[in-house]
Amino acid sequence: MAIPYPHFIASEKAAPPSSSLAAVATSPAILTQDDLKKIAAYKAVESVQSGMVLGLGTGSTARHAVARIGELLSQGKLTNIIGIPTSKVTHDQALAAGIPLSDLDSHPVVDLAIDGADEVDPYLNLVKGRGGSLLREKMVEGACKRFVVIVDDSKLVTHLGGSGLAMPVEIVPFCWKFTASRLQKMFEDSGCVAKLRTLGGIDEPFVTDNGNYVVDLYFKSSFGDLKVASDGILRLPGVVEHGMFLDMATTVIVAGELGVSVKNK
Amino acid sequence: MAIPYPHFIASEKAAPPSSSLAAVATSPAILTQDDLKKIAAYKAVESVQSGMVLGLGTGSTARHAVARIGELLSQGKLTNIIGIPTSKVTHDQALAAGIPLSDLDSHPVVDLAIDGADEVDPYLNLVKGRGGSLLREKMVEGACKRFVVIVDDSKLVTHLGGSGLAMPVEIVPFCWKFTASRLQKMFEDSGCVAKLRTLGGIDEPFVTDNGNYVVDLYFKSSFGDLKVASDGILRLPGVVEHGMFLDMATTVIVAGELGVSVKNK
Repeated sequence: MAIPYPHFIASEKAAPPSSSLAAVATSPAILTQDDLKKIAAYKAVESVQSGMVLGLGTGSTARHAVARIGELLSQGKLTNIIGIPTSKVTHDQALAAGIPLSDLDSHPVVDLAIDGADEVDPYLNLVKGRGGSLLREKMVEGACKRFVVIVDDSKLVTHLGGSGLAMPVEIVPFCWKFTASRLQKMFEDSGCVAKLRTLGGIDEPFVTDNGNYVVDLYFKSSFGDLKVASDGILRLPGVVEHGMFLDMATTVIVAGELGVSVKNK
Repeated sequence: MAIPYPHFIASEKAAPPSSSLAAVATSPAILTQDDLKKIAAYKAVESVQSGMVLGLGTGSTARHAVARIGELLSQGKLTNIIGIPTSKVTHDQALAAGIPLSDLDSHPVVDLAIDGADEVDPYLNLVKGRGGSLLREKMVEGACKRFVVIVDDSKLVTHLGGSGLAMPVEIVPFCWKFTASRLQKMFEDSGCVAKLRTLGGIDEPFVTDNGNYVVDLYFKSSFGDLKVASDGILRLPGVVEHGMFLDMATTVIVAGELGVSVKNK
């Protein structure tokens, strides 16, 4: 059930600059996609309790959660938190926000992880990794007792790959063309096209925090059984990890124009 | 059936230095383990034909095959060979031996690969990678029409892991202790101990050609169904590849004191 959030608009959203105040006052609130991401993130942070070890996600939605946790720590409303970042970017943001950090080697059990997703299917399976941090995210989020996913409603799909956007696969740079070609061939019945991810505007490969490349798979139609696809990809030598997160999310918080809905596994 | 090899001893082995000639003449030939490796390697190279794209293995047995191919090229007995090396070490050896080289991106179909193995079970499944090149070996040898494995008879085991020596797993350096601990736990019923591979004598991690670490798994007893174990390992985020080569070898050439035997799949 969707819960409307006048409360959030009133209490959490920064006051608009005075020049736009009239517009806001005379028309219904128009929420941007970033507003929705922030709403979902704040809702997820309500589950955080003092003393927890927290997996800190990566991306434009997760960064709202990291900022909020830092804010609550600085206000003394949360204490004794340890964050496990899922990327170098999140590491730096969390450090700047005053969140004490550690890693899985020192804290192999994570109480709660909060992260965004690129796609969510009706069974709470996810595609993640368009931000390029899928491997570390999967390691941290695979080690947590509860994994809360936060998305705006544009991320909901009927089946993974259904958005027509990328399903990323992290691969070793060695003979990457060969691996990309094998991935494309594996899913040729689904009209798969495999593209090396490059840095915006130039022809250099994007390199992950682990020194690997990312091949983005685009599908024209469903690629069938997700577990079969997952194992098939992982069996290819040269593949390090893929962006399907199957049976991992325990809660998905979806923010849309009409309110927030919470789906539990 | 084992084939004795007086021919090899006479024709292929370098003549001993004159000071040891008397001993050789008056006692039966005593073959070292390295002699056996060389015998198996030379036997495998008999399958190489001009015009082939060849996967060139890595390690103390494969290096004899690479040297022999270089020799036959320099003698004009082989022509038009392209080698695909499975490691930087083999790349350098093959280059020095005059073998023209390429890679899987340019030559995605390999006619024949020749490589050693650390263990061979009765079904021609292998453990490889004690030399640390398992990922590139698996990529090249998974792309070949025929894969000839060359070993001395000390490498034969009743089941993989049965030698009591390492079964290597290549993992990303990020939180390697966590990944090693999950691997050990996965096989705790087989008395598994997981150890990070370090450089000889010092406490620095061994780093693969792909910038990753290797965790060596030691088993006290059989770890059961090989395909189940393989998928279980590959599903762990943080794992890049493991050293089990299942259903890949098409021929295994075994050299022992009594002769050479050839097993075909």
